[in-house]
Amino acid sequence: MTQEIKAIVFDTFGTVVDWRGSIINDLGVWGEQQGVNVDWAELVDRWRDLYNPQKARVRSGELPWTNLDELHLEALKDVFEEMGLPLLDETRMLHINKVWHRLAGWSDASSGLHRLKREFIIGPLSNANVAILVNMAKHADLPWDNVFSCELFRHYKPDPETYLGVCKMLYLEPKAVMMCAAHNYDLAAARGQGLKTAFIPRPTEYGPGQTTDLKAEQDWDYVASDLNDLAVQLGC
Amino acid sequence: MTQEIKAIVFDTFGTVVDWRGSIINDLGVWGEQQGVNVDWAELVDRWRDLYNPQKARVRSGELPWTNLDELHLEALKDVFEEMGLPLLDETRMLHINKVWHRLAGWSDASSGLHRLKREFIIGPLSNANVAILVNMAKHADLPWDNVFSCELFRHYKPDPETYLGVCKMLYLEPKAVMMCAAHNYDLAAARGQGLKTAFIPRPTEYGPGQTTDLKAEQDWDYVASDLNDLAVQLGC
Repeated sequence: MTQEIKAIVFDTFGTVVDWRGSIINDLGVWGEQQGVNVDWAELVDRWRDLYNPQKARVRSGELPWTNLDELHLEALKDVFEEMGLPLLDETRMLHINKVWHRLAGWSDASSGLHRLKREFIIGPLSNANVAILVNMAKHADLPWDNVFSCELFRHYKPDPETYLGVCKMLYLEPKAVMMCAAHNYDLAAARGQGLKTAFIPRPTEYGPGQTTDLKAEQDWDYVASDLNDLAVQLGC
Repeated sequence: MTQEIKAIVFDTFGTVVDWRGSIINDLGVWGEQQGVNVDWAELVDRWRDLYNPQKARVRSGELPWTNLDELHLEALKDVFEEMGLPLLDETRMLHINKVWHRLAGWSDASSGLHRLKREFIIGPLSNANVAILVNMAKHADLPWDNVFSCELFRHYKPDPETYLGVCKMLYLEPKAVMMCAAHNYDLAAARGQGLKTAFIPRPTEYGPGQTTDLKAEQDWDYVASDLNDLAVQLGC
């Protein structure tokens, strides 16, 4: 099967980068410097909670296509209100919002991707917009061949247009493209369109009490402990 | 000015890769192996001659959006007819058409881009579609941060939507983005939209008798002898 796969696309938030830990760390340091006193762990959990409802509004057509930087900013203001915090000036609100551009990779991410890049076309297939993914890649040394942002397809995962959009753009059949993710729902959607699948558990993505996606829930084509292990299994 | 520039986008055909020399070489070797006896230099010159008229048909709306792989295949069949050659089977016609995915960089291209990548977001801004650019980058070791194919904007250069599309996608002002090209018309169009400009002469792009684009025709922001020289001028 390895020989059939030409491209691997990766979920990024959770699968490649540690969004929760990075945001708590980044804004914790910045908040101290700025004298902005916020419970960043509570903020990030509330912020991420608004993500699925926001995507659902885009999917249903209630909202026209809106990219993730814009959804994040709207949600951030809502979270400030929920937490009873006064809004900061625009420069500082935008600095907080751009924290998603400054996420750190899991410890295996950069090295694993460098290995996989030798044999495969690699790219994120992420709900993040292009600017987030390009800046994140510079920050975390993620050597993508191309950024397959869902912004290109104007659909959020798990809509079929995203998985099939990558195949069409690369002139590859779905079976020649593999989706790699730490989330079973993402792989189920990719498999539904004929793509190959690889699962990597990230049991602390949501913090110490995580209860979901602790293990593979279907017989995915590959199950690996991290991206370096996936590279080994694929012969890179 | 250097500090203001965050991203550099590059014309690829001619500026980064030697399309004419690569195609004559690649198909020359393949033709001998296959017993396909064609004057490849004549073929490539005729093929490229059809490029501007094809783009004009898309721009005018006579053709709906059609990507470059598809335009190339249509033009290739026309060239075979012009040259009185019988069409080959589909596999071999597609192999010839995909030669644009296998182009070699000029000798300074890979090293120069690796240097520029340290300080800037770099990507092609090319009329080629994503598949051509991704495969070409693997083949020629072009370390793009992202592929800004005109396919994303469904407009061919020099339409303003292409230059401004990059800026919008990266949330950068036009003055923070520099266009690098071996073609004065491309830089003029980029400057018209407020982008910075860098010229690199490629005096043999069209072969030994080239008469156009031998030198900078305006006071571009940078004029460099090659991509390594551009890196030096930009302090990389």
